[in-house]
Amino acid sequence: MTIELDFTHDPSRRSFVDAANDPTSDFPIQNLPLGVFLRGVERHVGIAIGDRIFDVTAAAGLFDGPVATAVSTGSLNAFMAMGRPAARALRQRASELLVRESELRSQVEPHLVSRHDATMLLPATIGDYTDFYASVHHATNVGSMFRPDAPLLPNYKWVPIGYHGRASSIVPSGTPIRRPSGQTKEEQRPAPQFGPSKRLDYELEVGCFVAGRNALGETLPIDDADDRIFGLCLLNDWSARDIQAWEYQPLGPFLAKNFATSVSPWVVTLDALAPFRAPLAPRAEGDPQPLPYLDAAGDRAAGGFDVTLEVAICSRRMRESDMPPWVVSRGSLLDVYWSFAQMLAHHASGGCNLEPGDLIGSGTVSGAAKDSRGCMLELTWRGSEPISLLSGEQRRFLEDFDEVILRGWCEREGYARIGFGECVGEVLPAT
Amino acid sequence: MTIELDFTHDPSRRSFVDAANDPTSDFPIQNLPLGVFLRGVERHVGIAIGDRIFDVTAAAGLFDGPVATAVSTGSLNAFMAMGRPAARALRQRASELLVRESELRSQVEPHLVSRHDATMLLPATIGDYTDFYASVHHATNVGSMFRPDAPLLPNYKWVPIGYHGRASSIVPSGTPIRRPSGQTKEEQRPAPQFGPSKRLDYELEVGCFVAGRNALGETLPIDDADDRIFGLCLLNDWSARDIQAWEYQPLGPFLAKNFATSVSPWVVTLDALAPFRAPLAPRAEGDPQPLPYLDAAGDRAAGGFDVTLEVAICSRRMRESDMPPWVVSRGSLLDVYWSFAQMLAHHASGGCNLEPGDLIGSGTVSGAAKDSRGCMLELTWRGSEPISLLSGEQRRFLEDFDEVILRGWCEREGYARIGFGECVGEVLPAT
Repeated sequence: MTIELDFTHDPSRRSFVDAANDPTSDFPIQNLPLGVFLRGVERHVGIAIGDRIFDVTAAAGLFDGPVATAVSTGSLNAFMAMGRPAARALRQRASELLVRESELRSQVEPHLVSRHDATMLLPATIGDYTDFYASVHHATNVGSMFRPDAPLLPNYKWVPIGYHGRASSIVPSGTPIRRPSGQTKEEQRPAPQFGPSKRLDYELEVGCFVAGRNALGETLPIDDADDRIFGLCLLNDWSARDIQAWEYQPLGPFLAKNFATSVSPWVVTLDALAPFRAPLAPRAEGDPQPLPYLDAAGDRAAGGFDVTLEVAICSRRMRESDMPPWVVSRGSLLDVYWSFAQMLAHHASGGCNLEPGDLIGSGTVSGAAKDSRGCMLELTWRGSEPISLLSGEQRRFLEDFDEVILRGWCEREGYARIGFGECVGEVLPAT
Repeated sequence: MTIELDFTHDPSRRSFVDAANDPTSDFPIQNLPLGVFLRGVERHVGIAIGDRIFDVTAAAGLFDGPVATAVSTGSLNAFMAMGRPAARALRQRASELLVRESELRSQVEPHLVSRHDATMLLPATIGDYTDFYASVHHATNVGSMFRPDAPLLPNYKWVPIGYHGRASSIVPSGTPIRRPSGQTKEEQRPAPQFGPSKRLDYELEVGCFVAGRNALGETLPIDDADDRIFGLCLLNDWSARDIQAWEYQPLGPFLAKNFATSVSPWVVTLDALAPFRAPLAPRAEGDPQPLPYLDAAGDRAAGGFDVTLEVAICSRRMRESDMPPWVVSRGSLLDVYWSFAQMLAHHASGGCNLEPGDLIGSGTVSGAAKDSRGCMLELTWRGSEPISLLSGEQRRFLEDFDEVILRGWCEREGYARIGFGECVGEVLPAT
């Protein structure tokens, strides 16, 4: 795996969009994440730059050949189908157009719209959604609650465990989340009951959009897997823990998860993330070597992404008192046990065809430290140790009108900050 | 639930397509199943009639308004989006056009093509695929192999257990199936290994295509669920048992299933199946009543479909000796524990949006009798009791070049036979 850094990463580059030059901005000219937004009644492809969106669909005339054609579709799927080189060409051209010294500034400015007023849509039409379980800390914590005798199953350190999720209920950040009803069973009762979930949770994850395709029956060598990663976003795998506990055996979570999954609207491309590639946290002493199909020197050296991830909660009372969201955990994407390249290589190892626009979730990202646990189930240890919000309110699980905010960013000395923006959802009461 | 029988079911109706009048034909004029096939380079909607396909896309001019528009799309998704009434209108008109006394025979005949020469495609673009586990006999058999201490888990008789499957790897009947490689672990070995599956299996299932949609957050009352069933097909949920055994905990089967799922090309509509509605096999003494959201008088009375299902295997040696496929099991779809209406109502009970063209699998259909077990895992009891084919060859699991043929049909005194055709796949060696 070769990490290429070109002029687009130059930390001294500035944009003529002032807000992009604020060192705390998620969207400097070195980032240029891609999204899809509503322009009137049309879907347009946009690039986030500071507090603006560069409407590249409207500005298609400023781009060349295949890139111009792809942005005209108003969807990222066309880019994802063309693989990473097309996204790189778009990035390089957009960087030239948006730089402070841009000769085409007057042609670009009419295509800049306010990011805060925009209605963001899903970044792509998602054919299939797969959710992994890549954090060994999460797996161990959850396992010890559900299966105290066998917290980490024998397959965990060999198999990147994953399962299929529901594509139709993936929604963009900002979409309110209806508390689901479902079957739950309390231990002391003989029969289950049907009603609103009492243990609604979020899961802090990173999503990976797939680029390119492998035909059905074809595998994906681990050395090529990085080229199948189009970019990353934040993902909230909302989970109803009481429904999950009753339904999940033997075929895995189903209704506990498929009522909604939120994704952040901006896909941070692999090129933007290049300066932040790093090895994953080292495996524990005595852990097995990955089998050859999951093992590659490049992946060992830089298969991870040094992304800081955090979760904040804002209750209705806090919003009414103008309090800011309260950060409840912070962790690192480097703490996962399996890289996205390993997840993709595993996914295709039996011949499953991965298609452009498919979404892969990392699974809940939890670290070893208590304050880096990526879901409430772990943070409150199944509700037994409530957490306090800034308002003094206590939470064992999510309450109605709680807003959950996921954030992610990369920072490294000598490089511009690359942010993911936010993935937000407010819990609405059950119907 | 009202079962409506109109003129299209009249058993005395005959078609001017002679082969449709053979009482053993799967596709008499009372059936009229819908499919999509390749006409030149275009996708056309067709109706199977005897040994012919009525190309209704080419014959769109013979249909009215919305039906004509829908058939012109060359996909069944438009029909599925319009719900069952549109399919009924198509059925009634097609029945008038294809009947022996048809006044428009001369206008229909140019649009009849040979069914045997046609390249059938998937009947719909499948957004999400969900596989259930509705046969209590299958669940009990498999459970007793994987978990001898707890064959049937406590949730089984309360929850229609299901999980999300892979949509991208669903293929039409006739597509060869590449034996997958994957991680497997033998008990006596300390580490897993990666290689071709040695325990490749089929699963005999019935697929259900979803009509109409419920918005995210909306549920589907059981009384309305039947109207969300567009039609049924045969489904082979190919399974690699050795991969499954090692990977399936705690999140369910993944690579053991997602290398391929085959479906038969003809969707038998709910209207064609109306004469064959029946109650499911009675629940065992002492079994719980379904919770109210899964319980409805209409569903209790006629929630099932009286479809006979069988599996045949034809090895390469048998084909070379001109032997016919050898039937290894035969069972009934009435033997499932949960009706499709219950599965759909359950699926949407937490607010999951079911979309037109979604596919729901029944899970392996096994009955109580040994010869009605719907997969090899059960038939050979995990390989310990091999079965013999007509050629004398023995099988514990599938061998390379074995062809698996699923068949299904409805028969009832006083009604025309309604068949599903075949769902066929040949196993190719691992790469």
